[in-house]
Amino acid sequence: MADEGDVGPEETKYFTFAAPPDEMSLESGERLGPITTAYETYGQLNRDRSNAILVLHALSGDAHAAGLHEGDQNPGWWDSMIGPGKGLDTDKYFLICANVLGGCTGSTGPSSTNPSTGKPYGPEFPIISIRDMVNVQRSLIDHLGIEKLLGVIGGSMGGMQVLQWMVSYPERIRAAIPISTTLKHTPQQIAFNEVGRQAIMADANWRKGNYYGHSPPAKGLAVARMVGHITYMSDKSMAEKFGRRLKESKDPERFSPDFEVEGYLEHRGGNFVKRFDANSYLYITKAMDYFDILGSKGLSEVFRGRRAKVMVIAFKSDWLYPAHQSQEIVRACQLAGVDATYCEVHSTYGHDAFLLEMKEETHLIKHFLNGVLKGHDVLDKKGTSSNENRQQDNL
Amino acid sequence: MADEGDVGPEETKYFTFAAPPDEMSLESGERLGPITTAYETYGQLNRDRSNAILVLHALSGDAHAAGLHEGDQNPGWWDSMIGPGKGLDTDKYFLICANVLGGCTGSTGPSSTNPSTGKPYGPEFPIISIRDMVNVQRSLIDHLGIEKLLGVIGGSMGGMQVLQWMVSYPERIRAAIPISTTLKHTPQQIAFNEVGRQAIMADANWRKGNYYGHSPPAKGLAVARMVGHITYMSDKSMAEKFGRRLKESKDPERFSPDFEVEGYLEHRGGNFVKRFDANSYLYITKAMDYFDILGSKGLSEVFRGRRAKVMVIAFKSDWLYPAHQSQEIVRACQLAGVDATYCEVHSTYGHDAFLLEMKEETHLIKHFLNGVLKGHDVLDKKGTSSNENRQQDNL
Repeated sequence: MADEGDVGPEETKYFTFAAPPDEMSLESGERLGPITTAYETYGQLNRDRSNAILVLHALSGDAHAAGLHEGDQNPGWWDSMIGPGKGLDTDKYFLICANVLGGCTGSTGPSSTNPSTGKPYGPEFPIISIRDMVNVQRSLIDHLGIEKLLGVIGGSMGGMQVLQWMVSYPERIRAAIPISTTLKHTPQQIAFNEVGRQAIMADANWRKGNYYGHSPPAKGLAVARMVGHITYMSDKSMAEKFGRRLKESKDPERFSPDFEVEGYLEHRGGNFVKRFDANSYLYITKAMDYFDILGSKGLSEVFRGRRAKVMVIAFKSDWLYPAHQSQEIVRACQLAGVDATYCEVHSTYGHDAFLLEMKEETHLIKHFLNGVLKGHDVLDKKGTSSNENRQQDNL
Repeated sequence: MADEGDVGPEETKYFTFAAPPDEMSLESGERLGPITTAYETYGQLNRDRSNAILVLHALSGDAHAAGLHEGDQNPGWWDSMIGPGKGLDTDKYFLICANVLGGCTGSTGPSSTNPSTGKPYGPEFPIISIRDMVNVQRSLIDHLGIEKLLGVIGGSMGGMQVLQWMVSYPERIRAAIPISTTLKHTPQQIAFNEVGRQAIMADANWRKGNYYGHSPPAKGLAVARMVGHITYMSDKSMAEKFGRRLKESKDPERFSPDFEVEGYLEHRGGNFVKRFDANSYLYITKAMDYFDILGSKGLSEVFRGRRAKVMVIAFKSDWLYPAHQSQEIVRACQLAGVDATYCEVHSTYGHDAFLLEMKEETHLIKHFLNGVLKGHDVLDKKGTSSNENRQQDNL
């Protein structure tokens, strides 16, 4: 095995399809086209095109999952997982990561030009769903000439896309790794998203979504992001990181942040508005809230007849997507006779853990994918062969 | 015992003190006066003035704790606890509830007139603390001619005031009942308040606090309240109340609330702005965040030498003020040799439980106060006499 390393300098590529009059049909019934999807790839596709893994990003992610863009200081959002010798080993696998439909970093979204007006879509952009995102990804996979993916993997909203792949295109995947995710949002999860949306729409600069060419609703978007960050951390990780310490220097203005935790939220909110579009935030969070992989099907039916090997990963301190939601995914797999294993990782990082708790997560992913490659049984978290009964014991 | 009943129609009374040049010194070092405190009383003060209980309200509460105001549809905020035969029995006790300093329903706060300018204080209002609130309450108790309170009781921020009474005026209270509260906020608790503050300050109508005479920052305040309501409910109580049901009729505007839980938050946010002042929200949440009853003292020192009997109540599903924070209060009492009992009530209501889980809470309070009246040992939750060792078992 190679030493762990980084992928080389990366470039984003673009694939455009569904040009009028052949627009893509959306789950809402509306039609959309042309659709551009921004994507990056890492590693080499092998001769029989059997080593491709699709990496699916969360709410605020993008196609840039690993490596450095020229001139950038920070590598991609999952650089610690993707590279030579890493959990998603670019010496063995061909990784693909695409910005989701509705996004704002190269893929078609509300800030893209509406071909029928020549102006940004804004609120004219159609409502999109997780299924629509996955349909766009399938077109990209077709375009890349990949018949069957070795795997699909992603955390949070990325995990929802993994589940959607399992249901929409089971014949196109050999393995699925949904991480820190859920079959559907609870009202509390919807409520946190809704507060973010209301904060954006409360910003006078939002102008009902028609703010392009004007100042964006930056304050509202920053508040939305602040709410998000509270839910991404655990009570404990916040206590360890900040305690009740006060900031070293405080803006003299009344009610400017005093505590370090306040400064952190302000900083994260402020950074976010530089890179994210408020309308994309509205559309994508709505897609998450509407997502319900069960739909009218029962828990035992949703994955019936699926053949992919599944590894579900949850983190103990994640209170936004608590472990019992991951256990529910495993239960759905087991009821449908799908080969699924469940790994609950100790961590104090909260929902952020899937991006931070790299050592154990790397170990789990590496061994699971090895097993899939060799056609072996799914490996449990101790790296030994497991079966359904033993997996059930983990719940 | 009388049947449970309601207190008669109630009126708010006002007490003003600290008229210039005798302003009250605040914890910040600033001086403030005159100070008006709005209060209500229920029941009769007995001849030896020994049956008075001070009821302390939470962030959004007011002096109107029980009964109906003329023309009002809804009774006071703790009407289910206060009345003939109820937990705080007006046949036996004289209840006093005052709007806190910094409030907006009759007591001096940022929306009050600044005597030196003739205009509302706005951002010129000084920073206030939980200790300042308690100092004002002590002046009211003096004014009412009460040497020693039978008890002080309150939930959430009301519980912080209870703890402050224990520290500031131990000789003035016989019993203390802090409910669903904490010795100090964690960074997560600060963060939730900070998001609310940032939402208010992001509203263009806030005008750095100088919005009186203009439109108030209603949208920002509504968002702040929505964040609050998420933290007041439990995941489970939201799931039971709303599930993923959609609203019966939806505003056709894109991103208007779809789900029932969204409609609920919108409704609660919208109602709140009709009755609450955004600057009061800023000042009062800041007072909560700065509150740290330990200060430089150790856990074993803070209540040293206190004689009040203490009953600490927590609710199992309260994740905003989790039970372990109440257990910490009990530990502080026990380390200081203070007679304290701990009651953890099963409930799915989350933080709201202290206002909703009336049956068990009533039972606990009624029996505890009976014990205090009779000078008996504190009673545990089964109504039997308990001692320190057995209480420790509850932790």
